[in-house]
Amino acid sequence: VSENPQLLPSWRPGPVRDAVTGFLDAAMEVAPRDRVACLDNDGTLWCERPNYVQLDFFIDALRARTAEDPSVASTPEFAALLSGDKAAMGELGLARIAMALVGLFEGMTPEAFTHRVRDFLDRATHPTLGVPLRAATYRPMLELIDALRSREFTVCIVTGGGTEFVRAISQDLYGVPPEAVVGTMVTYAYSAAPAGSDGIPLPLLRRTTGLTGEANEGATKVSNIQAQLGRRPILAAGNSGGDRQMLEWAAGGDGPTVALLVDHDDEQREFSYVSSAETFAEPEPITEVGARQGWTVVSMANDWATVFGDDAFGGDKPSPAG
Amino acid sequence: VSENPQLLPSWRPGPVRDAVTGFLDAAMEVAPRDRVACLDNDGTLWCERPNYVQLDFFIDALRARTAEDPSVASTPEFAALLSGDKAAMGELGLARIAMALVGLFEGMTPEAFTHRVRDFLDRATHPTLGVPLRAATYRPMLELIDALRSREFTVCIVTGGGTEFVRAISQDLYGVPPEAVVGTMVTYAYSAAPAGSDGIPLPLLRRTTGLTGEANEGATKVSNIQAQLGRRPILAAGNSGGDRQMLEWAAGGDGPTVALLVDHDDEQREFSYVSSAETFAEPEPITEVGARQGWTVVSMANDWATVFGDDAFGGDKPSPAG
Repeated sequence: VSENPQLLPSWRPGPVRDAVTGFLDAAMEVAPRDRVACLDNDGTLWCERPNYVQLDFFIDALRARTAEDPSVASTPEFAALLSGDKAAMGELGLARIAMALVGLFEGMTPEAFTHRVRDFLDRATHPTLGVPLRAATYRPMLELIDALRSREFTVCIVTGGGTEFVRAISQDLYGVPPEAVVGTMVTYAYSAAPAGSDGIPLPLLRRTTGLTGEANEGATKVSNIQAQLGRRPILAAGNSGGDRQMLEWAAGGDGPTVALLVDHDDEQREFSYVSSAETFAEPEPITEVGARQGWTVVSMANDWATVFGDDAFGGDKPSPAG
Repeated sequence: VSENPQLLPSWRPGPVRDAVTGFLDAAMEVAPRDRVACLDNDGTLWCERPNYVQLDFFIDALRARTAEDPSVASTPEFAALLSGDKAAMGELGLARIAMALVGLFEGMTPEAFTHRVRDFLDRATHPTLGVPLRAATYRPMLELIDALRSREFTVCIVTGGGTEFVRAISQDLYGVPPEAVVGTMVTYAYSAAPAGSDGIPLPLLRRTTGLTGEANEGATKVSNIQAQLGRRPILAAGNSGGDRQMLEWAAGGDGPTVALLVDHDDEQREFSYVSSAETFAEPEPITEVGARQGWTVVSMANDWATVFGDDAFGGDKPSPAG
């Protein structure tokens, strides 16, 4: 086990930190081309409560649209969302509401969408933590990404969120390039009208309202990892039922592997909640799945000395007045 | 224009080489994250005549299967292929024959398929050139890949062939990792039966007989570049009608760009043929599309001093007796 004090300084000493540093040491025996790490984003690399950041982005875009055209607000999906009517939202279902929100960007080019996401994240603050949204990343996980990258890992983000949404910030927040982001992918329409009298076409990709394949959760994460990345991870990190199959996929490989599960048990510095996984007949708390299967379950409260970066909070949740 | 004599030594001096080296110089003004190159494989990086290498691989697998089970040979698609009955093959169509061949690998894991491809390429020889198939890469293009990589380009292969087939050899032949190979993708089935009494699942991905999306040709190449890589190339290279949209996509971007079209006009050292592109109403030779749109059309006969690597031919096609 590595004794380097510079390694993972925000992780408290103990069996979880030892498991992670022990894996980092053992991975040096693995061929570099097999050093692949797949990390979930929401709730694993940054805070997902009280809302997914992408939902805040969608609502911001919806407010801008309704300011231009108030009639948009009467669409059932948007009316339920804007009024916070949880009964109506439950009846419509999250998938239908999400697709209505995706529709706000129909016809937009990839570049315009990326610009829109970055503009939002440059100005948005976390609704309860009182800090910039982009500062709500977990410092221990950023340290882990750095440690992996310095050991020649290919570090990938495998998210249930929109691929293009996460790509807009993955390089800046995590140093992860667009091709290493695997998520829920919108379908593009290609067109190439001749641009002028020279007859040279002007190719365009424009967002549609459809998805390419399924939402990137559960077993779909595993299939999409193979389809897009072509390699099996030896480290996977997640925090919810939607990450279960990806963690099992990493844990079940040959040689040194690790499945990291972030347990949100830190009401004081972050939030306290447990996600369920559909395993056999009954939903099972994901932390119990992890304990049963021998994953490395990371207690935010006990295993992380610091949750957020210095830039954000100096390591602690600010007071409500902060 | 760079005067470095070490740069692209297998390219003959002239306007085409100048266009390529001029682009390499100009690209240094582009942010590294936008230095993306997308290169077709068959006919652009390695020889595609008289057969696609992947077709030779398929036929090899079909022969192995029929040796085990002779009844397989009576399947109409396979019977036409094994007898070389071009009329029957034309009637069945290449797409149907290809899908029948994909079916030979149904149920196989990604690792087993990769092993199978590598085994084939370790022993296969080119049917007319009399050299190992893996030596039938174009040395000038390998030099271009090296030059791009040394200038911090992300070098990607965008192929109409099978993604997993090309991934099996892309690192060794081109230094391109699996996530940078965009091709025609088989669909996997995921399963995770509990492996034993401990109840820990054994996750498996197995090949099906279906494709994920469309065959990766034409406009689909552009959509798939965005879906998998998330960036627009500033260099694209191809040789056929199926590359047209990708070349237009690269050429139409901002800043320095180049669209390279390999023209197979070298009967003596390689092969002589022209692919057609569906442009307006009528098919148009792809070389004419390129000339009209201002692409950099590379004459194998005139612009390449050497076609194949030293390992293969000493730079020239061997005699029929070779």
